[in-house]
Amino acid sequence: MTHTFAADSVGLVRPEQMHFDEPLELECRRVLPQYTLMYETYGTLNADASNAVLICHALSGHHHAAGFHDAAEKRPGWWDSCIGPGKPIDTRRFFVVALNNLGGCHGSTGPTSIDPDTGKPWGPDFPMVTVKDWVRSQARLADRLGIQKWAAVIGGSMGGMQALQWSIDYPDRLAHALVIAAAPKLSAQNIAFNEVARQSILTDPNFHGGRYTEQGTYPRQGLILARMVGHITYLSDDAMRVKFGRDLQSGHFHYGFDVEFQVESYLRHQGERFSTAFDANTYLLMTKALDYFDPAREFDNALEQALERARCGFLVVSFTSDWRFAPDRSREIVNALVAAGRDVSYAEVETDKGHDAFLLKIPEYFRVLSAYLGRVADQLEEC
Amino acid sequence: MTHTFAADSVGLVRPEQMHFDEPLELECRRVLPQYTLMYETYGTLNADASNAVLICHALSGHHHAAGFHDAAEKRPGWWDSCIGPGKPIDTRRFFVVALNNLGGCHGSTGPTSIDPDTGKPWGPDFPMVTVKDWVRSQARLADRLGIQKWAAVIGGSMGGMQALQWSIDYPDRLAHALVIAAAPKLSAQNIAFNEVARQSILTDPNFHGGRYTEQGTYPRQGLILARMVGHITYLSDDAMRVKFGRDLQSGHFHYGFDVEFQVESYLRHQGERFSTAFDANTYLLMTKALDYFDPAREFDNALEQALERARCGFLVVSFTSDWRFAPDRSREIVNALVAAGRDVSYAEVETDKGHDAFLLKIPEYFRVLSAYLGRVADQLEEC
Repeated sequence: MTHTFAADSVGLVRPEQMHFDEPLELECRRVLPQYTLMYETYGTLNADASNAVLICHALSGHHHAAGFHDAAEKRPGWWDSCIGPGKPIDTRRFFVVALNNLGGCHGSTGPTSIDPDTGKPWGPDFPMVTVKDWVRSQARLADRLGIQKWAAVIGGSMGGMQALQWSIDYPDRLAHALVIAAAPKLSAQNIAFNEVARQSILTDPNFHGGRYTEQGTYPRQGLILARMVGHITYLSDDAMRVKFGRDLQSGHFHYGFDVEFQVESYLRHQGERFSTAFDANTYLLMTKALDYFDPAREFDNALEQALERARCGFLVVSFTSDWRFAPDRSREIVNALVAAGRDVSYAEVETDKGHDAFLLKIPEYFRVLSAYLGRVADQLEEC
Repeated sequence: MTHTFAADSVGLVRPEQMHFDEPLELECRRVLPQYTLMYETYGTLNADASNAVLICHALSGHHHAAGFHDAAEKRPGWWDSCIGPGKPIDTRRFFVVALNNLGGCHGSTGPTSIDPDTGKPWGPDFPMVTVKDWVRSQARLADRLGIQKWAAVIGGSMGGMQALQWSIDYPDRLAHALVIAAAPKLSAQNIAFNEVARQSILTDPNFHGGRYTEQGTYPRQGLILARMVGHITYLSDDAMRVKFGRDLQSGHFHYGFDVEFQVESYLRHQGERFSTAFDANTYLLMTKALDYFDPAREFDNALEQALERARCGFLVVSFTSDWRFAPDRSREIVNALVAAGRDVSYAEVETDKGHDAFLLKIPEYFRVLSAYLGRVADQLEEC
């Protein structure tokens, strides 16, 4: 094969699977007897295994964060703009690990996997997993990979929540946490949007209590609606105005319920694309994990107290037009870190791109990431 | 009957119907051969018919704006807090007319009415109606009631849009327009939320292309979802925090998909209540009327130019925490009015109640309405 990739691409990558036979006791008190995690790595682990960084994914993410699975793949991994030689997460310096979380639908054990007890897909019987459970399963993956301590745990949105939980649950196992476009817990409005998304799926007549696979069907409409609602919260009002305004598909009103405004067409397309690529039971689980996330809960609802356990350095990043997890929510984290006496840098990036900004190559944002991670790598190499 | 009402209540009221045999040509080019408008009046029309005010309703509103239909009615009309003797819309001074708009489901001709051509309910065949059509039908109602010129046309949200359209289409037929919590047109984000609501209904398997009545069924789930999405946009994030926070129904996580957080319970309840009281085809029509509203469109997209036609005085009111139609949207109207040389007062009311604030008895808001309408009444009585 003679295909060449850009010089700053990690190029061809291969997903790998790690199987765990040790049972994992979950926060919900149920036990996962065994499980598999799908992951990818980019770059090279150094001799003392000190240059590893963990990428935690958001609601609809997975292990394929950078590069291409084959030369014909049209789109690279979901964070390819940020991961590669010379990019902010520089694979010449770091060994990058990205995984699909437990409960996912991209190769890690989840609702679409076979329940060994029944020989059938878990479906709705898959146990509820939480951010804390994910972090615990990620720590086991680190053990297997011979990584005692991450140089950094990095994530945006739900991924940022995992980075935060890492700092509390395994204070000695990470040097830095990069918490991007996240929140210390969901607001009532955040939960409300998740609930609408869940109800869309749960009430789809093709959902069949989550046993759609056995019924040979799929709650496609429910997932489309769920994604449409979600997508509105990912974009800012300004970003939508710039992207679509009130532009009409056909140039004039046609007084009917077909697609008329471009924003309608975009949303339906996003919903439809998503519905073909994502498992409905997984979507339900992931939104619930978001709702449950509240690390302060175990500490008398005092986030500061929770973060007193942390030992790592923190970079917190927010985006001005993000209304899903607005800058105020990041400042709650920063204020608690400061009150807890932790080492924290905070950047509020000016952009009209809304919550989605965390996935985009925004110059100021990438400069902040590069500068912070450059110092992290410098320190490692000085040691 | 010996029941007594509060001294500032309009007391018992009776809805009335006005039938129109003259065909109404609609913006969509279809013609409604005949129609009925359901309305209520409060107060007394003075000798020269100069003290009449028109109340225009919002998305889910109707003609029953104040008072009680009978002594057993639990809740008065939807704007009872604002309409009555001594209230901001003072029925000792004004003759108040409130109607259900064309296409509605509370007695005016709409999708649930019988199409005289077929003898069956119009259902999805009811023509698309617009804000401009409503205003035209309201002008005909004014003719019948002997009202040549309204002392004021008043509305919140979609009602405010009707007041604005009145000022452009019938400049000589109103002395004042009160445009509350409105916008000069919907943003892409507003349209996006409406589209999710519509898709919820349109894809409900019980919708049957809008012919659910003939099928003996009802798209209940679709309406519930539509209302849940809508309701999130009516409340501010702050209002939700104050109202529910992250409080749990049972006090602890139960790791399932039943109602867990209070906000979930509240939303489902709102959705369910609405689904029993509203017609799905009407909901579709009303959201489309919102999307189409854009009075500047006929004037080279220059709102200022549209408003140069207006002759009335304007009071524009917005609410700081309203993110459905934020204060910025009201300021667009105010700026265009100022540029057009019109007489405008603007109040931005500080509140955490979100869009719903326009329906609430908020002291600063009511003081503004009382002061403005007090002057309107004073002028009338001086003449």
